[in-house]
Amino acid sequence: MKQIRLSLLGFGVVGQGFVELLRSKRELLQQKYDLDVLLVSVANGRHGFIYREEGLDPELLLRLAAQRKALTEYPDIRHWARPLDGLEATGGDVLAEATGTNLQDAEPGMSHIRAALSLGMHVISANKGPAALAGLELLELAREQGVQLRLESTVMAGTPVVSTVLEGLAGAQVQALRGILNGTTNYILSAMAAGREYREVLAEAQSQGYAEADPTADVEGYDAVAKTLILAALVFGETLKPSDVARQGITGVTQAQIAQAAAEGKRIKLVASLQRENEQGPLRASVGPMALPASDALAGVDGAMNAITFQTDTLPAVTVIGPGAGRLETGQGLLADLIAIARSQRVES
Amino acid sequence: MKQIRLSLLGFGVVGQGFVELLRSKRELLQQKYDLDVLLVSVANGRHGFIYREEGLDPELLLRLAAQRKALTEYPDIRHWARPLDGLEATGGDVLAEATGTNLQDAEPGMSHIRAALSLGMHVISANKGPAALAGLELLELAREQGVQLRLESTVMAGTPVVSTVLEGLAGAQVQALRGILNGTTNYILSAMAAGREYREVLAEAQSQGYAEADPTADVEGYDAVAKTLILAALVFGETLKPSDVARQGITGVTQAQIAQAAAEGKRIKLVASLQRENEQGPLRASVGPMALPASDALAGVDGAMNAITFQTDTLPAVTVIGPGAGRLETGQGLLADLIAIARSQRVES
Repeated sequence: MKQIRLSLLGFGVVGQGFVELLRSKRELLQQKYDLDVLLVSVANGRHGFIYREEGLDPELLLRLAAQRKALTEYPDIRHWARPLDGLEATGGDVLAEATGTNLQDAEPGMSHIRAALSLGMHVISANKGPAALAGLELLELAREQGVQLRLESTVMAGTPVVSTVLEGLAGAQVQALRGILNGTTNYILSAMAAGREYREVLAEAQSQGYAEADPTADVEGYDAVAKTLILAALVFGETLKPSDVARQGITGVTQAQIAQAAAEGKRIKLVASLQRENEQGPLRASVGPMALPASDALAGVDGAMNAITFQTDTLPAVTVIGPGAGRLETGQGLLADLIAIARSQRVES
Repeated sequence: MKQIRLSLLGFGVVGQGFVELLRSKRELLQQKYDLDVLLVSVANGRHGFIYREEGLDPELLLRLAAQRKALTEYPDIRHWARPLDGLEATGGDVLAEATGTNLQDAEPGMSHIRAALSLGMHVISANKGPAALAGLELLELAREQGVQLRLESTVMAGTPVVSTVLEGLAGAQVQALRGILNGTTNYILSAMAAGREYREVLAEAQSQGYAEADPTADVEGYDAVAKTLILAALVFGETLKPSDVARQGITGVTQAQIAQAAAEGKRIKLVASLQRENEQGPLRASVGPMALPASDALAGVDGAMNAITFQTDTLPAVTVIGPGAGRLETGQGLLADLIAIARSQRVES
C-alpha cells in the first residue's frame, strides 16, 4: 500500500471538513485506492503548527476543535509557533492548504504553497487567493520541481470542474466558458425571482450563514472575479489581473428588471464569462448580471448551486452543476486531488 | 516524447471521427500532452485489417473512406481478412474499439477487447455492447493483465461522465444516479412538450438521422438500458442483466400526459435510474418516463442532449449535461481515454 505523509495548514471549516473525510474514508482509501494517508502535521493561525512523526489521529483533532481547545493540547507533539517553520522542519509528501482566502496578497497561503513546492512536496489547495493571484506562476514552480499542484476546491468546492477540464475534457480545446460561480448571489437572485426583495433576502442569507456580515465580496462580484482568474489560468493558461475582468455586482438589480426578464421567459443570473474572439485573440473576461433564456443550462440553476458551461471544439456545450461551498463539499475536492496525486505516483512507488 | 502504437478496429462514423481528431490534434497531442500517436492498424468488417509498421496516415485513411474505397487500397500495407488475426499478429500499445454495438452477444467487439487485453494492450472502447454485457468481467481481465480498459464514449459520447466518476468524484461514494441517456427519445419528448405529435416527430427524427428506420432500440428504452448496465458496472461495481432493469419506453406517452405534466410545472423525460435503498441493499435499476419538477436539473435538458445527476455522500447532487452522440463528440471520448492512458504510463517510459 502507498503511504502519503500529509501536512494540513489551515484548520477552520474547510480543514476540519477534510480531516473528517480522512477519518470517515480511511477504509475506503485503503481498500479502493490502496492508499494510506498519514496526517503528520496540522496548523492554524492561532495555535501554530503541531507535528507527530507517527501521525495525528483525525478523531482526536476534531474533538479538540469541537471543544475549542488549542491544537497544542494534542499529546506527544512537536510544536512550532510559525507554520512555515514547522513545515520546513518536517516536510511530507503532500501539503493541503486550507487557510483563509485573502485576495489582497494571498497570504499566508501563498508562502505556504511556495515553501511546500520548493521542498518538493505536492500541493492540494482549497485557498482561492494564491490560485487567483498567482495560479500559473505556482503551476510553473510545481512543474520545475517535478511535483503536482491541484486546485479542485478553489472553484465550485469539490464539484468536479478542474478535473473536468484537465482529465474529462483532455484533448478538447475550451473556447469559452460561462459560469454561476457564487452561491450567495445566486441564492439572492433566485429568491428575488420568486418575488422577494433584495434587502430582505440578503438579511436572511446573512442570518443563515450563506452571506457574510459584510457581503461586498459576494454581492459586488469580487469572489466570482477571483474564480474567473483561476479559470483563466487553469483552462486558458493565461494570467489575468482583477482589473482585467469587467465586473458588475448584483446590488443594482431591481425587482422590475427581474419581472421584465421573467415576462420574456428569462432568468437573471450573475454570470462569469471567459472567451476568445478567435484562436489568437485576447481572452475576454467579465462578471455581471445577465438575462439568460430558459433554454440556457445555467438559467435553471437555483439557490446556492453553482454551474459552469464549457464550449469546446469537439463538444459544443458541457455543463457541470453542483454545490459551490460547504464543509464536506470542499473537503471532497481536496480528497479527490489527493487521490489523483497518489495515483500518478503509483508507478514510482 | 511518449509514442503510442494504436490499433483501431471499426472504421465507421465513430472510428472516422476519432481518426479525424488524431489528424487535427496531432500537434496539440505532441505539445500539450507530450504524446505521439502512431496509428499502425485499422480494420472494418468489409475490408478486413490493414497494418503498416511505420504508421498509417489519418489524412489518407479519411480520403479512402470519403471516396468509399476499400481500406486495402492503402499502399504498402500488410493485410488480414479477419481483424482478430491481424491484431494478434501485430499488436500495439492500445486498441481503440469502435465497431458497431450489438446488445445480443456484443460481438465482434467482445472478442476484439478480450484479445487485446490478453495481448497486454490497453483498450479504449466506444462500443456499448461489451461494456453493457460484460463490463466488470472485462475490467477484471484488464486488471489481471496490468493494463487499462477505459469506456468514456460508451455513455453520453465524449461528455465526461465516466471520468467524472473515476477521477472527478474520486473518494466520494455515489449512492444513486438518474440520467437522460438517450438523445432520440429526449428529442421526441422535447418536441412533444412543444405541442407536436409523437408520430410526426419520430418521422422527422428519422429523416434527419437522429432516429433509426427501426426505432425500437431507442423508443422502447433498450439503448438506455444498455447504458444503465454500463453505469451499474462502472459506478456501483455490479453486474446487472438487461432483465434486471425495469423498462418502459416512450411509445405509450400521450400528448395529454405531457400537457397534464406541463400544467403541474413538470416535464416528462425518459429517466434511467440506479440506486440502493441502503448501503447493503440491492441495486435497483429502471428506465421509464418520469414527470420531473422544474427544479430538477434534468427537467430543462432538451433536444438531443443527455445528462446525469449523481447523488453522493459528500456532494448531494452533481449534474453533467452534454451531447450523447455525434462523430467528433464520440471521438472526443476515445481521445480523452487515450490521453489518460498515456499519462498513467508516463512514469514507466
